[in-house]
Amino acid sequence: MTGPIYDRVALIGLGLIASSMGHAMKEAGLAGSVVGHAKTEATRAAALELGFCDAVFATAAEAVEAADLVVLAVPVGAMGAVAAGIAPHLKPGATVTDVGSVKQAVIEAVAPHMPPGVHFIPGHPLAGTEHSGPRSGFSTLFQNRWCLLTPGAADPAAVARLRALWQGMGANVEEMDAAHHDLVLAVTSHTPHLIAYTMVGVADHLRRVTESEIIKYSAAGFRDFTRIAASDPTMWRDVFLTNREATLDILGRFTEELFMLQRAIRMGDGEMLHDYFTRTRAIRRGIIEAGQDTAAPDFGRTKAPGA
Amino acid sequence: MTGPIYDRVALIGLGLIASSMGHAMKEAGLAGSVVGHAKTEATRAAALELGFCDAVFATAAEAVEAADLVVLAVPVGAMGAVAAGIAPHLKPGATVTDVGSVKQAVIEAVAPHMPPGVHFIPGHPLAGTEHSGPRSGFSTLFQNRWCLLTPGAADPAAVARLRALWQGMGANVEEMDAAHHDLVLAVTSHTPHLIAYTMVGVADHLRRVTESEIIKYSAAGFRDFTRIAASDPTMWRDVFLTNREATLDILGRFTEELFMLQRAIRMGDGEMLHDYFTRTRAIRRGIIEAGQDTAAPDFGRTKAPGA
Repeated sequence: MTGPIYDRVALIGLGLIASSMGHAMKEAGLAGSVVGHAKTEATRAAALELGFCDAVFATAAEAVEAADLVVLAVPVGAMGAVAAGIAPHLKPGATVTDVGSVKQAVIEAVAPHMPPGVHFIPGHPLAGTEHSGPRSGFSTLFQNRWCLLTPGAADPAAVARLRALWQGMGANVEEMDAAHHDLVLAVTSHTPHLIAYTMVGVADHLRRVTESEIIKYSAAGFRDFTRIAASDPTMWRDVFLTNREATLDILGRFTEELFMLQRAIRMGDGEMLHDYFTRTRAIRRGIIEAGQDTAAPDFGRTKAPGA
Repeated sequence: MTGPIYDRVALIGLGLIASSMGHAMKEAGLAGSVVGHAKTEATRAAALELGFCDAVFATAAEAVEAADLVVLAVPVGAMGAVAAGIAPHLKPGATVTDVGSVKQAVIEAVAPHMPPGVHFIPGHPLAGTEHSGPRSGFSTLFQNRWCLLTPGAADPAAVARLRALWQGMGANVEEMDAAHHDLVLAVTSHTPHLIAYTMVGVADHLRRVTESEIIKYSAAGFRDFTRIAASDPTMWRDVFLTNREATLDILGRFTEELFMLQRAIRMGDGEMLHDYFTRTRAIRRGIIEAGQDTAAPDFGRTKAPGA
């Protein structure tokens, strides 16, 4: 341990990501103190009880006073209003970052409010679970996960410091252009989530016909979709509304591709299906080799208890 | 342990399901002996080496001689030819079952070949992993999973005996009509697999543009899709070709629903998206309460090593 990277960190919004950051910073001694703000009294109380914040405040404006790093960890659609509210209270020379899943829309919403002398460095840790709220966080969430920064023309020293914080929490850090980020995430995250939500929605309609059979027999594949379709609705609504163009682009490609496979099924083109299903296997291997998922069958969950 | 349920069991095809059955029957003493057939010498050798077969044969006809239970564990499209080949060699009074993911097509392909006095009882264990081949099996695969039988007018005593075998391997057994089976599985398994294959295929095209970024950043959701899209291509080709009508029906519903959500994104209808994403959460809870998946965040895989 080399001592704190920031003397005082303020977390605005205390859900899964912020609480995990609080736990991780405390465990690694990366912050002199961690303070926070959440809208509800219950969430603020949980943050103190769980110990990932040293102090909590009823307003974001109070929370950011004297903070060296401010982390905006609210849904993407709320970032602009929060930025406007805290702007007059930011410490000169402070860094403001965020953890939103979309970057161009956050930059448009937040950057205009940032006072001169404050470093705004947008960020996005590619980490999370289907759970949400202050009690869902844990210190190892960012271990071996990527954190993408889209710093634009931000001060290199301030960027290096934020990078060191994420590395201290176990993440691998990359920088990229905000538009490129939004396209890559539309493929790796946003479109898959929409598709999972859709498939679960279809099953929900049919469940009324077949009663509980869909749930009972879900282990045949469907249950994998339900995990990501259990994620926070507000967060995901905002992602789709703010990364609209890239998501619609990838959805268009997806639909074209699906129609091609659907036609192959209708026409009985087994060779085409077999070729397609063979190619997709290689991608799984690549992900395992890159250390981004477990090679254990069924994510390791099929082992019987005690096995 | 109450002694073997069948004196001699013949496994035709020695992949993930058959090898798991072999291991499970041996571990629980459910079969006097287990013999097997696979097309390749390497697979037959693996079965002996791993010990889940006591003897292996170069032809299915030899393997079924004197067997009390014959398990057809080949891709659905190969069932008819295998049934024709073994029919003259079946022991009178033997039971023939299968483990195919589609039931109506298997019945059409297999039943006409069955000699009088042989009990044909179609079955489908809802268990598996993305791995395949004789080395991927393990004895606990069927623990707390469902096995669906579609016995039609088969002899009740023969059905009860097969049911006892599956229960002995840890499965919960249900009986249903073959057409209903195929519709339920189109929802819980076949359509989700096709969608996962499609999404991974889209990413594969884009990967050529964005190099390895799709793999690198896959933990944001995409990697869940790659697991089921890594399943055996031959098996899945046959599933789609033989459960064509039900799969196309559910795909049609899926596409309608996707277009509705796509339109909501395009029109900026956040309320509709939020409502939709809230409803789908409840299904995940139902699956966890039904004991069909783990409640651990991210299927339990996000815990850091040693955590």
